[in-house]
Amino acid sequence: MDKGVLYGIGVGPGDPELLTLKAIKILKAVDIIAVPKSKSDKDSVALNIVKDYIDNKPIIELVFPMIFDKEKLNSDWNKAADLVTTYLANNQNVAFITLGDPTIYSTFIYLNKLVINKGYKTLIIPGIPSFCACSAEAMISLAENNESISIIPSASNMNELITKINEFDTVILMKFRKNFNQIKDIVSENKSIHAIIVENCTMNSQKIYRDIQKIHEADLSYFSTMIITKRVI
Amino acid sequence: MDKGVLYGIGVGPGDPELLTLKAIKILKAVDIIAVPKSKSDKDSVALNIVKDYIDNKPIIELVFPMIFDKEKLNSDWNKAADLVTTYLANNQNVAFITLGDPTIYSTFIYLNKLVINKGYKTLIIPGIPSFCACSAEAMISLAENNESISIIPSASNMNELITKINEFDTVILMKFRKNFNQIKDIVSENKSIHAIIVENCTMNSQKIYRDIQKIHEADLSYFSTMIITKRVI
Repeated sequence: MDKGVLYGIGVGPGDPELLTLKAIKILKAVDIIAVPKSKSDKDSVALNIVKDYIDNKPIIELVFPMIFDKEKLNSDWNKAADLVTTYLANNQNVAFITLGDPTIYSTFIYLNKLVINKGYKTLIIPGIPSFCACSAEAMISLAENNESISIIPSASNMNELITKINEFDTVILMKFRKNFNQIKDIVSENKSIHAIIVENCTMNSQKIYRDIQKIHEADLSYFSTMIITKRVI
Repeated sequence: MDKGVLYGIGVGPGDPELLTLKAIKILKAVDIIAVPKSKSDKDSVALNIVKDYIDNKPIIELVFPMIFDKEKLNSDWNKAADLVTTYLANNQNVAFITLGDPTIYSTFIYLNKLVINKGYKTLIIPGIPSFCACSAEAMISLAENNESISIIPSASNMNELITKINEFDTVILMKFRKNFNQIKDIVSENKSIHAIIVENCTMNSQKIYRDIQKIHEADLSYFSTMIITKRVI
């Protein structure tokens, strides 16, 4: 019997209009929608983005708690791969939806490897990364001409961050709330840089902060991105 | 009289199916399509991507030769802004189309500033950046967990490139043909990295090179992206 295909689909940052035609075509064509979740009772932002395009298709929830026990995580991923390949073996196509782009800090990559190793075909459909939507909404360029960009998931070493700010024209921080006060100090001490935070980008609750000194870590949602630029804005 | 709006629209890397719903909605709604070109007799890749969505709308070509004379370039941009604002003043909406994303190495940013300074409203619609499509097609992750990414437009200083390769988990090179032989040497000498080139990504002529030592600079098209990763692939 033919086997199904697993698609890793980037659904973009939040606005359903930022879905690509290709993502929608595949979402409409597949048999099963797979949704990663950190808690089983939590709403999925990704699922909310695609809800108009999946009719009443069966949804399988893959729960990966935010833990750092690698063995437990591996076991969770293996269980997820076993579940997904049950459908693929049955010639059903599965679309795994992921916020932003599947190749940038997405959990899809772990599942992808396991499913390929089990002998199945997978395909990745790119999505708008959150930082591109943030720069568009904040109306700032991430790079022009010969400028360089660095993307740092969580800035924990402040000396390293200072080095990166010096070396790159633009620094994008994906998760920064833990060290927010230290980052604010770095930004306020360096007069040649500007920092902008975009929270819940392209969602109804979007906020853009152009003076980060005025805000507190506790006020920011999980979906916050900081762009540090040397450009006059 | 009401004024028109200038939209900077990212049309993605090449495959028209990677257009977003929002891009298509705006392309269908605007009055004028503006297309940047480096030569007036050259075909526009961006225009080819959107051709099914613009009917017979008037197209204005904005020619910006690839020159380094800043004064001449500024004069070209000012002329383009004058032309675009003629339509905006007449309450016509203009969509400026740009490959990839408008905030990453796009010419839109220059026009955007000038048009805003002339008192008009502009909006940026993000697009799939070429490197996200390249990683999807090559099936490699750009970053997982705490990994960092750097994006370098043209690697001219090889010592700097070696430093970046050491400091970052993934290095993306946008234009690298000029120094390709030196980059090949760096890659062949460092056993902990892999380099992949995706040429004409998502276009009909797409090619993926997983052994860059076998190829020559002259064989690569302008639309080539190199991803240097430390991951086992």
